[in-house]
Parts: sequence; structure tokens; C-alpha cells
Amino acid sequence: MRIAVDAMGGDHGIPVLIEGVKLALETNAKITQLLLVGRESEIKAGLSQAGLRDSRIQIIHADDVLTMDDKPMDVLRKKKNCSMAKAINLVKEGSADSIVSRGNTGGLFTASTVLLRPIEGVKRAALATVIPTPKNEFILIDAGANVECKPLHLAHFAIMGNVYSREVLGYKSPRVGILSNGTEETKGNELTQAAHRLCKLLDLNFIGNVEGHDLFENRVEVVVCDGFVGNIVLKTMESIATAMLHWLKDELYKNPRRMMGAMLAKNAFKTIKKRMDPESSGGAPLLGLNGTVMKAHGSAREKAIMNAIRMATESAQLKVNHIIREDVARANAVFPVEAVSESAN
Amino acid sequence: MRIAVDAMGGDHGIPVLIEGVKLALETNAKITQLLLVGRESEIKAGLSQAGLRDSRIQIIHADDVLTMDDKPMDVLRKKKNCSMAKAINLVKEGSADSIVSRGNTGGLFTASTVLLRPIEGVKRAALATVIPTPKNEFILIDAGANVECKPLHLAHFAIMGNVYSREVLGYKSPRVGILSNGTEETKGNELTQAAHRLCKLLDLNFIGNVEGHDLFENRVEVVVCDGFVGNIVLKTMESIATAMLHWLKDELYKNPRRMMGAMLAKNAFKTIKKRMDPESSGGAPLLGLNGTVMKAHGSAREKAIMNAIRMATESAQLKVNHIIREDVARANAVFPVEAVSESAN
Repeated sequence: MRIAVDAMGGDHGIPVLIEGVKLALETNAKITQLLLVGRESEIKAGLSQAGLRDSRIQIIHADDVLTMDDKPMDVLRKKKNCSMAKAINLVKEGSADSIVSRGNTGGLFTASTVLLRPIEGVKRAALATVIPTPKNEFILIDAGANVECKPLHLAHFAIMGNVYSREVLGYKSPRVGILSNGTEETKGNELTQAAHRLCKLLDLNFIGNVEGHDLFENRVEVVVCDGFVGNIVLKTMESIATAMLHWLKDELYKNPRRMMGAMLAKNAFKTIKKRMDPESSGGAPLLGLNGTVMKAHGSAREKAIMNAIRMATESAQLKVNHIIREDVARANAVFPVEAVSESAN
Repeated sequence: MRIAVDAMGGDHGIPVLIEGVKLALETNAKITQLLLVGRESEIKAGLSQAGLRDSRIQIIHADDVLTMDDKPMDVLRKKKNCSMAKAINLVKEGSADSIVSRGNTGGLFTASTVLLRPIEGVKRAALATVIPTPKNEFILIDAGANVECKPLHLAHFAIMGNVYSREVLGYKSPRVGILSNGTEETKGNELTQAAHRLCKLLDLNFIGNVEGHDLFENRVEVVVCDGFVGNIVLKTMESIATAMLHWLKDELYKNPRRMMGAMLAKNAFKTIKKRMDPESSGGAPLLGLNGTVMKAHGSAREKAIMNAIRMATESAQLKVNHIIREDVARANAVFPVEAVSESAN
């Protein structure tokens, strides 16, 4: 597999990225070529600093960088030669199988959608984030790319999340649910109720509506929602997890007895912190495009970069997009004609 | 203050409720009358079992009970003589100042809205839930009553939440934000963007959009959203908090060293668990009605019931509804005419 890596962007600069690339090349024999896209001199300096020499590495120079302050559309206009756009174009031209980027999520979504185009039959690509729980992992799709959605979009998100959960995460028959304000079929807003009716027609393990209560109780592997709700839920989860760990820390520092206890039990806290930490998880795939696009967290460090590269490699190798295209075509054939036509992007 | 308490419903039955009432009467001198509404024989048995004799208590018999399986509208039709409906009617008739109920939330919202009617100028009542964080408390409004909302509804929720936070929770100038997928004014869906424009016209400390990340970082005291989003966020928060505590427990039981540590630090865990526990918090007010309605958690135990009664007493005494009426009237006068007229319920 040939992986294009956007070397720019992210919170930790090129040296950390290069260390992640090094880990990936060491552990992942499926990589046949790794294209580092960005400022050549900085990348070269990073490679020599890391002592990384590997014939699979090729540098593709790009002068410009899309920053977090740039607007998503800048990636196609003012900064159309930035590292991110160049990396996506490598996939478009067929020079790479996947792209990994830590950069501006909105920019990555916009550029990928415009340059790679959605898979035939898919109206909207979506950002899928994998969330670890004590007992399983669930995909939240859409985690923030599409603020306004139509029922067909949500039904396609269900299909795409199902394919990713099954093919990449290895769940045999992922339980797919629509995030709603109650489990009964009559619950939900107009959007989710209509999406519910479409999902019932699908050939997958659709369990109906799921509530916030179900997310961490090992009841669902694919949680479908629009990007507005998905963004809020994702950030709320990150926020409360962080707050609880800080809160616990404050409480544990309140007296020597507690501090002693915390010392003895510190590995327990470490395990949880590590598992919850977005920095140690892998990437969030953009699903539904003609090309494998993996968003690594802006704060991704070495191991997270390695994981994102691994996921990008596996997604391409397992032909996730090909399977999505087939599953969506089959679904569109059974959906009511109005549902398919009214959702023209 | 005269408080009507729906004695039926809830997970823990009449004996627990009576213990909560006992605590309330012992600690709250503002209560002049406490009307217990429900099956007289069961209430009498509960009172005698608890050894509670207080001249302020009066029993109002109601044979029927609205259960969790009943539909919200049943409270006005099939079960219009249930304890919940009778208790609300006591407020309507002027025989009580507030009502507290642990029962079916949908039923309580429906019956209260129909029987008490929204405050003049308010289009929709809302459920406001108070969420504790390590550093402050914020109100989530609407926490689940109105699945589909219009911009004016959200603006009214902002006003009502602001009044409650200021008058009852004691924040001098509560920071009010709209829950959205980004802090920039351009972020959000059509609904929140339009609500944002209205809230900017208000005479309150409106801080614009807030994200999931902001909730537990002491940045906001009133979080405004529609009831679909509010329900999902609330349940997700409860779910992840519970999951994290269970997870931590599992990790702490993994070896004797950790168990010893957990023993020494157990008060730290207890503090957090207690603060996060919905059973120990008070009630969630339904705001925007001609009457004070306090929803206690279905799983509320003694202390939570005492707290809900205290909040119901304070809300009535502080004339929260009167202040809401004035603030909403002032706001409606500055809102664009279209915004006010198009939101006729």
C-alpha cells in the first residue's frame, strides 16, 4: 500500500510526525511506499534527526500549510498548493492509496470531498470516530462533518459505519443504532424518524434508536447521527472524561492518606487515562469518498500517528470503499424513490 | 409556601418519599402546608411507619397512578384523576404554590403545560436540569421536553435559564451560551444560528456559542439547546460518568496493591460519586408555566426528595415565574416581529 502523509499541521510539528512514521514503517510490512508531503527542508531535517532512512520514503515538496485558522474553503482557493491538498491529489491521481493528515478537519473534509468526490450513490461523506468503552468500541458517525442532514444521509452513514466496523474493527455483525431521545420507534425528531424508516429496510443488524445511556453499556457498535449532534456528543464525552480525571486528581491530593492510596493504585488510573486519551487512539476515517482519507487527531503523537497510518493501510487494503459502494447501491435500490431523489446534495 | 407532592410513581415507592418529606419538614421552615397526593391508605401507612406526625401535612386522595409505561397524554384522558394530575390541579386552583413529582416526565410536562398553561409571552415550557461540575453548576435547558424547536423557543429558554440560575442558584450574572458545534457565530445549524441572533438582543450575559468542551470547564452557567439534543447530551453525560466509575472499579480490583490503594483513597471516590449521582441532586424545574413544577428524578431517594421540595419552595418564594414573565415580555418587545409571530406553537 502507498500512503501519503501530510507532514504539516497538527500540534506537535514534524519531529513527532517523523517518529510516528518511523514506528509505522517498522511495524507495518504492508506499506510499500510512504509519501511525505510538506516542506522538503523541514522534512529532511526531521528524517536525519530521527535517523530514519528507508527506501520506501519519498518526499513531495509543498510550500504552503493550511493552518487551524484558515477557512475550510481556503484549501481549494488561496492555498490550493498546500501540503494537504497535494497529499489528497496524490490519491486522486492514483499515486497513493490513502492519505493521513493531522490538519484542519474542515479543510480536510472540504478538499477530500471536492477532489475525490463521494462514492457513486453516496450523497455525503462523513467523519467516523471510534470511541473506546470498557467493553467494546463504537463508531460515532457523523462526528461533525455535516451540520444539516437529510434522512438518506443518515441511512448512508449507517451503511458506511457498518462496513467500517465489520471490515476494519472486526465486529462480525455490528449493532447499528440511530442516536435519539428514546428507544421507541416513535421517539426522535423528523430527521431521525425518517432515517429510522429507511434503516429498517437495510440488510444489517439495525437495533433501532439508541439513547445516550446506551453508548457506554456495550449495546451498540455504530451510532448514527447528524454532524451537529455528533460534534456536541463527541466533545461532551471528551470534556466530561477529562473533568472527571482532574476532579479525581484534586480529590486524591486532599490528604496524605488519599495520596498514598493514589500512588498504590496509579496504574489503574493510567490504564483508563491512556484508553480515553485521543492522542493514543488512531485516526478518524472520512467515509464515503473515492479514496481512503484518515484524519489523525490534531494532538496526535507518535503512537497515534502510527495507528492512523495502520488504519489507513488496512482501510485501503480491505477495500472498504469498494464494499461501501456495493452496499449503498443495494440500499438505494430498496429505498423509496422520493427518499433518494429529494436528498440530492 | 404550600407544596403539593405527588406521592406516587418513582422507583422507590411511598416509604422513601415519606422519609424525604420528613427531612424537608424538619429542615425547611418556609413550608406552611404539605399536600400529599395519592392513595390515602398507602400514604397513611407510610406516615405511621415513619412516625411522621406534622400538622402541615394533608392527604389528598387519588386512586389512579400514571406509570412509566403510560403515554404522556394518558394523564389528561384515561387517567385524568391520577395523583399527578390532581397535584397539578391543586396549583391550578390556587390551593398549592408548587408541585413536586417523581413520575413520568412526559406526563408531567404534558399535564403541566395543558393545565397550568405557559406564562404569557412564553411559547414553550422547558425542562431545566442542573448539572454539577468540579467548579460550578450549569443548567441544561431544554433537557428533553421539546424535541422540535424554533429560534424563539431557544431564546426564551435562555431567558428562563438565566432567571433560574440567578434567582435560585445564586449566580450574579450567569454566563448563557447556545450549545453548538463551534464557538464562532457562523457555526451551528439553522435553528441555533437564528437563536443566536435573537439572544444577542437580550439583556443578559450572553457569551455566544459554547461547545461540548466548555461544559465542564467552568465557562458557562446556562446551556441552551433543543430538547432532542438536550436529552442526548444529558444521558450521554450520565452514561459516561457511570461507565468511568465502573471502569475504575474494575481496574482497582485487578491486584491487591491497587485494592489497598483504593481502600486508602476511597473517600475521594465517594465524594465524586455522590456529587455525580442524580439520586442526590435535587429536582429539575419545568420553567415557563403559570405554576412551579419540580421534576424529581425517578430514582430520587430521601435526600433528593428533600432537595426537590426545597427547590420547589424557593422557586415559588423567589417568584421565579413572575420574573420570567417580565423578562420575556421585555425580550419579545425587542425581538423582530416575524420571530415572535412565526413561533406560534
